[in-house]
Amino acid sequence: MESEEKTTLGITVKKNEDFSEWYNEVVLKGGLADFADLKGFMVIKPHGYAIWEKIQQHFDAEIKKLGHKNAYFPAVIPEKFFEKEKEHVDGFSPEVFWITEAGKEKLNEKLALRPTSETIIYDSYSRWIRSWRDLPVLINCWNSVFRSETKMTKLFLRTREFLWQEGHTCHATNEEADKEVMAILNIYKKLMEELLAIPVITGKKTESEKFAGALYTTTLEALMPDGRAIQMGTSHNLGQHFSKAFGIKFSDKDRQEKYVWQTSWGISTRLIGAVVMAHGDDKGLVLPPSIAPVQAVIIPIVFEKSKKAVINKSEEVRDLLSTQFSVELDDREGYSAGFKFNEWELKGVPIRIEIGPKDVEKNQAVLVRRDTGEKEIVKLPEIGKKVKQTLEMVQKNLFEKSKKLLKENTHEASDLKQFKKLIENRGMIIANWCGDAKCEEQVKTDTGATIRCMPFEKIDKKGKCIACGKDGHLRAYFARAY
Amino acid sequence: MESEEKTTLGITVKKNEDFSEWYNEVVLKGGLADFADLKGFMVIKPHGYAIWEKIQQHFDAEIKKLGHKNAYFPAVIPEKFFEKEKEHVDGFSPEVFWITEAGKEKLNEKLALRPTSETIIYDSYSRWIRSWRDLPVLINCWNSVFRSETKMTKLFLRTREFLWQEGHTCHATNEEADKEVMAILNIYKKLMEELLAIPVITGKKTESEKFAGALYTTTLEALMPDGRAIQMGTSHNLGQHFSKAFGIKFSDKDRQEKYVWQTSWGISTRLIGAVVMAHGDDKGLVLPPSIAPVQAVIIPIVFEKSKKAVINKSEEVRDLLSTQFSVELDDREGYSAGFKFNEWELKGVPIRIEIGPKDVEKNQAVLVRRDTGEKEIVKLPEIGKKVKQTLEMVQKNLFEKSKKLLKENTHEASDLKQFKKLIENRGMIIANWCGDAKCEEQVKTDTGATIRCMPFEKIDKKGKCIACGKDGHLRAYFARAY
Repeated sequence: MESEEKTTLGITVKKNEDFSEWYNEVVLKGGLADFADLKGFMVIKPHGYAIWEKIQQHFDAEIKKLGHKNAYFPAVIPEKFFEKEKEHVDGFSPEVFWITEAGKEKLNEKLALRPTSETIIYDSYSRWIRSWRDLPVLINCWNSVFRSETKMTKLFLRTREFLWQEGHTCHATNEEADKEVMAILNIYKKLMEELLAIPVITGKKTESEKFAGALYTTTLEALMPDGRAIQMGTSHNLGQHFSKAFGIKFSDKDRQEKYVWQTSWGISTRLIGAVVMAHGDDKGLVLPPSIAPVQAVIIPIVFEKSKKAVINKSEEVRDLLSTQFSVELDDREGYSAGFKFNEWELKGVPIRIEIGPKDVEKNQAVLVRRDTGEKEIVKLPEIGKKVKQTLEMVQKNLFEKSKKLLKENTHEASDLKQFKKLIENRGMIIANWCGDAKCEEQVKTDTGATIRCMPFEKIDKKGKCIACGKDGHLRAYFARAY
Repeated sequence: MESEEKTTLGITVKKNEDFSEWYNEVVLKGGLADFADLKGFMVIKPHGYAIWEKIQQHFDAEIKKLGHKNAYFPAVIPEKFFEKEKEHVDGFSPEVFWITEAGKEKLNEKLALRPTSETIIYDSYSRWIRSWRDLPVLINCWNSVFRSETKMTKLFLRTREFLWQEGHTCHATNEEADKEVMAILNIYKKLMEELLAIPVITGKKTESEKFAGALYTTTLEALMPDGRAIQMGTSHNLGQHFSKAFGIKFSDKDRQEKYVWQTSWGISTRLIGAVVMAHGDDKGLVLPPSIAPVQAVIIPIVFEKSKKAVINKSEEVRDLLSTQFSVELDDREGYSAGFKFNEWELKGVPIRIEIGPKDVEKNQAVLVRRDTGEKEIVKLPEIGKKVKQTLEMVQKNLFEKSKKLLKENTHEASDLKQFKKLIENRGMIIANWCGDAKCEEQVKTDTGATIRCMPFEKIDKKGKCIACGKDGHLRAYFARAY
């Protein structure tokens, strides 16, 4: 019976054999998401949504500390707004869903389903902002956006609708906008490294990779175990591009009328996909404790005659641990302990606590780590302390492993030949670049690698442009990317 | 200067003179919401959204205690799903927005922008549910829905998109579904009465007023100060209507294959509109402390020479109160104290705390209640206790006032003549009814009043049907409604 269940429910593909198929299975069987019966769209199931709630709670609290507030703007955008900022419309229009009818009537004007909300929000800002007293405006929205992707659907990574937050701020000066961009980027970095346990490289996007309509885009890039990079989040300084297009002006302290300086920034449910890829293993999901909806699961090992004592003890342990951790007691009838072990492993719960008749006798429990599989017998009076320590160790271990992966798969290339050889093994390649978009394009065409970012850290290594061989005064991270 | 500000910013219409225009001004000037430049759509501004967050936090915690989990389903629904349940499609299709294009391409199949998610969710349920072990399914979604209203837009009350939660559960038996319907209705009632301070009448909808596709609908109805009723929330037993249409079957313990019994239920941002109407006054919003984003605002009364001492003391009070309440210190420069008083009154903050030079000397503050305008001098060592008591008193007072309004405006009618006379003053009318939809329709045509609900409380008053004069074995609340 048990082995049957294993075959049906467990992961059938190895992570290092078919990464893509492994990913699909982990997402589906781990109960994170499902395909909707509608090309390109996904359903975020309770386990996946609970991870998103953890991310939301953390980020929401961080931005509120800095004075940001949430608001809601319509999901549909009149065509006329959408077309006001030229770069922006060029960047997004190929992917826009259009609403053209209501009931049985044809609409007078087509409405775009928001691919991002700059335009509809900035129309409101142009009416709300009058004076320097109204600044800064620090607004964030939690919503979903729609982009008619044509490439193959990949749960969390490439779907036609996804959940995200989009922040939209207005400032009196460019310096303030710069500061805001970096403040948010730092919150993102902390979230990714400390909560998701995924190290990121931060830097600027090139002109060809920046957000459509931005002055510049900053980004956080991570490396996945298959050697491909993933953009984890972006924070843009929009300059005055949109404020000029939408007429967002304020009367400054010097009584001069000025256009505001703006930023926008976002992270999405794609982060959940990155967590799956970064930490999962051949048994399924492995969740960092900081975002695990269930941090420890208690599984009573039940035999008929000792059932009551084992359940009682399990409940006692649950009640004890619940004051500090999110704990679940799996006392479902009709499932074997082995089945439950597999299911909770699939779901990535960081700690399993087994309590059987012998454990009750000895006032102990067996504690099993999801990341390493290590088992340890713990005396019950110690269990609170032990769970806390173990969760910290799991969190740290996942981050260290990811840092190691990034370090071991980041290489320096000094010419195109070397670059091409290195990129065969994927990973991040750091190289010099002259700054010419043609060279960037050539590398992309030849190797499939794009410039992920130009890192903020100053790396004073002079060298020649990886593509043209002329003076390469810029440093850049290249990778094939999601 | 100050009076100028008053004229521009304050409410210019009295609540009892032009209720509708007063409502509009309070919502706009209180900073709750704004019209988008797009017919029928609204923007929920930070102050309004923060109230929604309070409602969300409370309800989310309550349903999670009962084992419900959140999830996310696509905002767009293929036409084919939408048409599977006949009553449902008839009820909603006149109001559906249709997506027909993506990029420059025409779609093969039209997609509905969700007016409610039964159909797309139940398509997933039909694939997720196999056995009695999978039941109950207790899922809730926080999202927005779209209905192409043609009547005049009213912020929070009638807009083409609004935020809500929709719960969708599956059960093994009808009895369990009945229980779920009532469990949720009770959470709603508590939320409305204890948080929003609005008393509600609960009962069943008539066949003609029930949700399109439901077995029956339960509702919570409140009476607004203009004498019109408002539906505050609904909880439906869907029976097996949808499970049969979508094939949601499970193998029961007796090994028989059965269709699940379902419920769905929702409350929306419309509740914010009800709060505005129920409690607001000629100075603007009046918020119940339980949902006020800011419960107390501290306004320093600043003169040049004593400025530092007053600000220091204000900060000290803020820090003290912040541990228990949500408090804001309004130390903005360039605004007079009078201007700030008006602005925070407009925003409905329950308590204003004034601290001037004399107060600093005497180690006291002036505490002003928003609901009654009462002022009280409070010694600072007492202020925490006093704020707590006052918030409780405001909360209670608002609820008592609303209860009085409902009581004073609920009347019994024993025949149609009396009914017509009573309905001229609006309010709730309780009367007997024979149960025939024709009689219900006749009353509606003649008086504009609909049956809001058939109350759960047993009222054993025999009488004749208000419309046909025959045996009226049912009791019903009638009102003109939002």
